[in-house]
Amino acid sequence: MEYGIGVDLGGTSVKIGLFTAKGKLLEKWSITTNIENDGEKILPDIARSISYKLAEKGIDKKFVGGIGIGVPGAVNDGVVNKCINLGWGVVNVVKELEMLSGIKVYAENDANTAALGEYMAGSGRTYKSIVMVTLGTGIGSGIVIDGNILHGFSGAGGEMGHIIVNTCEEEKCNCGHNGCLEQYASATGIKRLAQKRIKEFSVDISDEEAQNLGAKEIFDMAKDGDEFALSVVGEACGYLGHALASVCAVVNPEAVILGGGVSNAGSFLLEKVEPRFGKELYHACAGTKICLATLGELAGIYGAFYLIEN
Amino acid sequence: MEYGIGVDLGGTSVKIGLFTAKGKLLEKWSITTNIENDGEKILPDIARSISYKLAEKGIDKKFVGGIGIGVPGAVNDGVVNKCINLGWGVVNVVKELEMLSGIKVYAENDANTAALGEYMAGSGRTYKSIVMVTLGTGIGSGIVIDGNILHGFSGAGGEMGHIIVNTCEEEKCNCGHNGCLEQYASATGIKRLAQKRIKEFSVDISDEEAQNLGAKEIFDMAKDGDEFALSVVGEACGYLGHALASVCAVVNPEAVILGGGVSNAGSFLLEKVEPRFGKELYHACAGTKICLATLGELAGIYGAFYLIEN
Repeated sequence: MEYGIGVDLGGTSVKIGLFTAKGKLLEKWSITTNIENDGEKILPDIARSISYKLAEKGIDKKFVGGIGIGVPGAVNDGVVNKCINLGWGVVNVVKELEMLSGIKVYAENDANTAALGEYMAGSGRTYKSIVMVTLGTGIGSGIVIDGNILHGFSGAGGEMGHIIVNTCEEEKCNCGHNGCLEQYASATGIKRLAQKRIKEFSVDISDEEAQNLGAKEIFDMAKDGDEFALSVVGEACGYLGHALASVCAVVNPEAVILGGGVSNAGSFLLEKVEPRFGKELYHACAGTKICLATLGELAGIYGAFYLIEN
Repeated sequence: MEYGIGVDLGGTSVKIGLFTAKGKLLEKWSITTNIENDGEKILPDIARSISYKLAEKGIDKKFVGGIGIGVPGAVNDGVVNKCINLGWGVVNVVKELEMLSGIKVYAENDANTAALGEYMAGSGRTYKSIVMVTLGTGIGSGIVIDGNILHGFSGAGGEMGHIIVNTCEEEKCNCGHNGCLEQYASATGIKRLAQKRIKEFSVDISDEEAQNLGAKEIFDMAKDGDEFALSVVGEACGYLGHALASVCAVVNPEAVILGGGVSNAGSFLLEKVEPRFGKELYHACAGTKICLATLGELAGIYGAFYLIEN
């Protein structure tokens, strides 16, 4: 192949990248995700957008080795079973997109795809095995070992957001359980913890301000030494460190990579995760690195490109 | 190759099996593990025993495709760094045993090896991916995905005995941490829990009887409906179910296999693990089977045989 295409399919937009065979990103663009009528337009829109781009560039599709696509749901043999964000039920992504585009398609869960991106072209590029955790609205995670995604039997490999870290939790996670990591260390989880603690700390804040207090604001306040925010960040990062230590005892990766919006807190996040992680890490895993993702929003299209098999 | 040899190296005995190329066990025998002088005799003893057996059978070693060996410690590139049970410091198992035997050697951690045995020839034979947990004096575990052992970056893959399941634990695990799964669900852990609860339940038992109360006795009492024993079994199996649900969220295996001495409690053990496991299992992992190992003590030599590469 001379070119490959990476597609990162999200609930609001679809990011698309055109790469050379060696993984140089030539161009990236995005289109809106049209979730009307159970998302029936999504794949046709993607195929059309790729077709236009290839025409614009004067590239014949016979020189395109494949389209990799990361999808927000579990993917098994190219088939997705429910993507709530897209309005999809059962969709055979590979078959449909191949028919629409006339190009070979490779599909994978989006968190796994992002992990592959960081592994191949981001902060994981020098490591043999990584666990990549995306701390966004939810918590996605992916595991790459010797270049292979740990896909899992039913496509649920690396779903560490649903490790139960607090058996006393009374509120329910979206998944229906109580006490999942996602309820504490995702952006939504951090916001939730903050709302709960506002009263406890008698924080002087209006209801409207309280509503607008997101993970970014809380991390900023914590960096400034605010006790209330430090307490929230401490709790979230404590649970994250605990879950990461468990994951390391099972997978023993060379490195753990933190990405997603929450990871914009940078080294401050690492400092807050480290104590509990270090305390609980099994000694044979000593030396496991924790680092920040470097590809940001591009991890998805990079990883999708690397799904394409030679 | 026409034959292969599987070696299961333990702290008290070495089990050895002679297999046909297709994995039929022709003969098994064992020798005592001589741990004197930092275990310097262990590998020479194994090489000699194999040599005698081949001579006895009239098999030329050129027809032996390899020796696989499971070792009670983390193995990296054939090298073990500390096996406390054997008195070993740094030992290059592959290099030394190859020199002594004149046969190609493949070494792996014993829990990983047992997992491979169950995967290839035991209750995991019909599954694509398994997590095998050996509930013995300690807790060993191994993960096999698509025929490959999840070895881990430093050979500590699948060390789920050191997932921390109780952050309030005051006693220390052998690893130095507090609250590891091994402190509750290993044979030693179950015994420890029982000792703690004897007073709480005002159990009418002499000190000597209490000292002899092992995991087997406790499971037997629990099967007879004894409340004290049911409480101990409930706690141990609750922690085990919790840790297994976490592992499934990360690895998403097709099946979890329970082996080791504690698993002799049979279906009663599964019944006691199931409630918490089922309650905490992430929905996308629904359908994960939990079953009992079937190879018993042979899992080690079977797995060691399957380490041999064609």
